[in-house]
Amino acid sequence: MADFEFALCASEGSARVGRFETPHGGVDTPAFLAVGTLATVKALDPRDLRALGAPMILANGYHLHLRPGEDVVRALGGLHRFMQWDGPILTDSGGFQVFSLERLRRVSEEGVEFQSHVDGSRRFFTPERVIDIQRALGADVIMQLDHVIPGEATAHDARDASERSLRWLERSLQAFVATDEARGEQPQALFPVIQGGVHAAVRLEAAQAAAAVADWRGFAIGGLSVGEAKPEMYAVLDLLDQALPRERPRYLMGVGFPEDLIEGAARGVDLFDCVAPTRMGRTGTAFTTEGKLNIRNAALRLDAEPLDARCECSTCARFSRAYLRHLFVADELLGYHLLSLHNVHFLLSLMGEARTAISSGAFRTWSQDWLARYHSRSTATP
Amino acid sequence: MADFEFALCASEGSARVGRFETPHGGVDTPAFLAVGTLATVKALDPRDLRALGAPMILANGYHLHLRPGEDVVRALGGLHRFMQWDGPILTDSGGFQVFSLERLRRVSEEGVEFQSHVDGSRRFFTPERVIDIQRALGADVIMQLDHVIPGEATAHDARDASERSLRWLERSLQAFVATDEARGEQPQALFPVIQGGVHAAVRLEAAQAAAAVADWRGFAIGGLSVGEAKPEMYAVLDLLDQALPRERPRYLMGVGFPEDLIEGAARGVDLFDCVAPTRMGRTGTAFTTEGKLNIRNAALRLDAEPLDARCECSTCARFSRAYLRHLFVADELLGYHLLSLHNVHFLLSLMGEARTAISSGAFRTWSQDWLARYHSRSTATP
Repeated sequence: MADFEFALCASEGSARVGRFETPHGGVDTPAFLAVGTLATVKALDPRDLRALGAPMILANGYHLHLRPGEDVVRALGGLHRFMQWDGPILTDSGGFQVFSLERLRRVSEEGVEFQSHVDGSRRFFTPERVIDIQRALGADVIMQLDHVIPGEATAHDARDASERSLRWLERSLQAFVATDEARGEQPQALFPVIQGGVHAAVRLEAAQAAAAVADWRGFAIGGLSVGEAKPEMYAVLDLLDQALPRERPRYLMGVGFPEDLIEGAARGVDLFDCVAPTRMGRTGTAFTTEGKLNIRNAALRLDAEPLDARCECSTCARFSRAYLRHLFVADELLGYHLLSLHNVHFLLSLMGEARTAISSGAFRTWSQDWLARYHSRSTATP
Repeated sequence: MADFEFALCASEGSARVGRFETPHGGVDTPAFLAVGTLATVKALDPRDLRALGAPMILANGYHLHLRPGEDVVRALGGLHRFMQWDGPILTDSGGFQVFSLERLRRVSEEGVEFQSHVDGSRRFFTPERVIDIQRALGADVIMQLDHVIPGEATAHDARDASERSLRWLERSLQAFVATDEARGEQPQALFPVIQGGVHAAVRLEAAQAAAAVADWRGFAIGGLSVGEAKPEMYAVLDLLDQALPRERPRYLMGVGFPEDLIEGAARGVDLFDCVAPTRMGRTGTAFTTEGKLNIRNAALRLDAEPLDARCECSTCARFSRAYLRHLFVADELLGYHLLSLHNVHFLLSLMGEARTAISSGAFRTWSQDWLARYHSRSTATP
């Protein structure tokens, strides 16, 4: 298949199995992207990710602009070579990060001025600048700069931001096309980001307007899982499932936890990313098929069982809960590595099961069973 | 070969190549032992150590007694199974750690009372208790409890401590023999620890007295590289090379840096351990064949070269100095892992080169060349 083609292989209701082609290999969807914000998936070696079968990694334009700077990454041969990951990479524009700097940024039609969270220096992101940064980084898939709003924003504010994001999308496309012709280097795909909060009309307008701008190779869905109730998120996904072109991949940004992945896949989402598996891996919580497990729990002191008896990862194949607990109690780095590895494997494996279930028409029953077991017990501390 | 036999294969001057057999495999000597104080070599997975060809790992009785407790390790099947390292393991008695707690311990003929550095709880180590702890941990080679003194101790203090260590050695042996018969489990070897500071007469007496107690399977040399001048350390090693039985392995505790390994091997030392490669790996300093390299150095910002062009480790085969610098500047865990891996590989590789050189009678010239290059340039910050 040609770069950035998306082949639909099977479907069950809105859930679908597909394959998204990139210059660095294909991605079987629905897929979970491990997050490598600063050109490293925290506590994991790229060889671990390869061995886990990670299909694609996400890095962050904002963070890499600040450290080490896109000039450094470009000089070292681009992100793939820099971080020694030869599979597909997607970069976020950094819109989410910039707009999270509440007291440190000022939005205008031109762009957004902000202060670096690293050294307080003043920076200015425009749609064009963000394309330049992501061109220099060289990920396979890149995102437009979007105006991100808080989860509780009114319809008025959501529309205002969404319409600005659409104007920025047109500027992003112009910059993208211009730099493509100028450089003639590795092909990249630019995705628009659909915003609009939980407001159906705004989301619908945004999806239709974005789709009218160009024949995008995929669409990102932003601004969800930011505090709204789950039914609100599911309603937006249902709406966008109808509004977005069926023959293009949909990427749900920053989502999520196992239940979100299943509910998202059920609504036609193809790509997900979330820091949860590695963040939880560093703080001592493991996903298991029976819920979350707090590895510091004193009850595990002599527990010879693996994190999850159903898991086939190399952590579970080798180490007892008692040993992993010891590593966390003693603040040993190996603990962060082993739990991150398990948690990423857990979500990759979940997506693999989902693909199999969709392909065989068993997704609905599989997902009900899976979620019932997952919610049956949770030993995570409150 | 039978467990704990030591076969001498080649020699050049006092330097020798040997093989030390253990219930978990043989160790080609001279050998460097990576330090896994708390049943984990910091920032490395046991699979990494296997891939690096690490011949033996050191863990620590004091630290493991406090966390997670030797009862936990024993219940989980012993150290090898607990930490998933099926190669040889050596445990230190914890004497060095206890005597480092200057204001927190009190020595008597019976043993040493101290306060846990973890929770301040009162503990009492006797020679017998320390044997029990190490029996529970189940390492292949274990150490007696010794009375460790500061590097600047007088001959009088050194003799007093050394003589106490010898009396404790006899009690250790009795406890060791008694528990061996009682348990009938995995064979272990107990090493005496030769103390005596930099005082030749005390060292000589200690070596002769210890050797007279039993037919030990090896000897540990303690109390060196604790602040004394290098020539003083070398003089003690020269002395002990003559005084200790030639047909038994000598283990120089807590030493050392590359130059120490070479100078030690030249004086008939067979086993070394040191936290330096992993500690430096976490703080951002890499061993290279041309000296130490501070990876945070701003001059490396765009440096596409590996840490050491001569190195064959998987860090150097893949990553640029610029990328590694970025990881350290951004406090990314992968940096600690990759530098630790490189530094451990560096010392393992150094010992491999030393064995080859000794076997071919080229050790003297090889070591001179190696040290000259190593001292030719150092970019580590002061």
